[in-house]
Amino acid sequence: MKLVLIRHGQSEWNKRNLFTGWHDVELSEQGVAEAKQAGTLIKEANITFDHAFTSVLKRAVHTLNDVLAESNQDWLPVTKSWRLNERHYGALQGLNKEETAVKYGADKVLQWRRSYDVLPPLMLQTDPNHPSQDRRYQAIDQRMLPSGENLKVTLERVLPYWTDAIAPALLQGENVIVAAHGNSLRALIKYLENISDDDIMAVELPTGTPLVYELAADLTVTNKYYLT
Amino acid sequence: MKLVLIRHGQSEWNKRNLFTGWHDVELSEQGVAEAKQAGTLIKEANITFDHAFTSVLKRAVHTLNDVLAESNQDWLPVTKSWRLNERHYGALQGLNKEETAVKYGADKVLQWRRSYDVLPPLMLQTDPNHPSQDRRYQAIDQRMLPSGENLKVTLERVLPYWTDAIAPALLQGENVIVAAHGNSLRALIKYLENISDDDIMAVELPTGTPLVYELAADLTVTNKYYLT
Repeated sequence: MKLVLIRHGQSEWNKRNLFTGWHDVELSEQGVAEAKQAGTLIKEANITFDHAFTSVLKRAVHTLNDVLAESNQDWLPVTKSWRLNERHYGALQGLNKEETAVKYGADKVLQWRRSYDVLPPLMLQTDPNHPSQDRRYQAIDQRMLPSGENLKVTLERVLPYWTDAIAPALLQGENVIVAAHGNSLRALIKYLENISDDDIMAVELPTGTPLVYELAADLTVTNKYYLT
Repeated sequence: MKLVLIRHGQSEWNKRNLFTGWHDVELSEQGVAEAKQAGTLIKEANITFDHAFTSVLKRAVHTLNDVLAESNQDWLPVTKSWRLNERHYGALQGLNKEETAVKYGADKVLQWRRSYDVLPPLMLQTDPNHPSQDRRYQAIDQRMLPSGENLKVTLERVLPYWTDAIAPALLQGENVIVAAHGNSLRALIKYLENISDDDIMAVELPTGTPLVYELAADLTVTNKYYLT
């Protein structure tokens, strides 16, 4: 079985160097081009899928749509879940990374960005940008909605989705693509490759570049490569 | 509850006046513009959905994607089914409508296009374009795959999907959008409005124009209008 992970193409807020998290921004023009190129690479590699998964954030959904269109697999079943969303960046969402470094100190910001288990400053529940104010999260137990996450917490919400939705598809012998985000995919990679808490923070997944895992019947990784 | 039906925007084969059916063609540039405009109209009318349904043909999938993007509802669950596909046009698929009239006679072609229960010439099972040769239909009992349909047969395969997937969502109080095709939507309209076999053939749904049904708790139609 093949599992392909793809991080969304460049977004408008990546371009502006803002903390994005669960904020729902569009792909930039470059991001759309990256997504389409990823679809072309998948088509050229003759990789076909049986099921696609993505988050409920449009930069990931649109990346997946472009990949499926370019590889002529628009008809595939797609399942979207908040569990594949980007790490929630708490009160930092919408702030410029450089300005934040000036305000809080570069060391603190580096710690928020690069430590496995330090939480960012939390977003208030009453903030109009809090997930509890958003229609798309109304059917989720509100106590489960994050106000700010580190990678550890991100992994804890991604992993049940792996176990309950993605792994079962693979275990049926299906090929699967997951279009998601830097940190939700980092969580999957950490689990798949048994990477330590310290080492995972140095793993950088390039945007819009399909990462192919070939898996044994028990889902251990037998091969891994990027399509470029 | 609201049920919105939308026929895909103009396709490349609509433009060339070819019988399309299950052939999987792209939207034309005009078709993409129609789909985006439909999304804008839905946004301006403040219509929100809880679930979206479409066929496994890219002209409908892309129309839905554009509608969801323009109305900022990319995160909605989308379910795709072959049961919402266009009427299968049998051996006529890919033929020019005018040339077909010259070859078979205009009366015969009019009968194929406008009668409720006359079948078109059937496509051979061994034809490389037959659904049984297409990966997307592999999980369907092959005896259920059409080789050519009239509206009567199209309705018989659409209706179970209404009963099993669309109606249950509406009965839970959800708002639903269905992005599909001239004849699969005609089948739904016939059922919803109790239109006779004779009268339904005169009903023309414009491309890319949202048709809004307001439904009572028992799914009877209480109001009906187009967004323009």
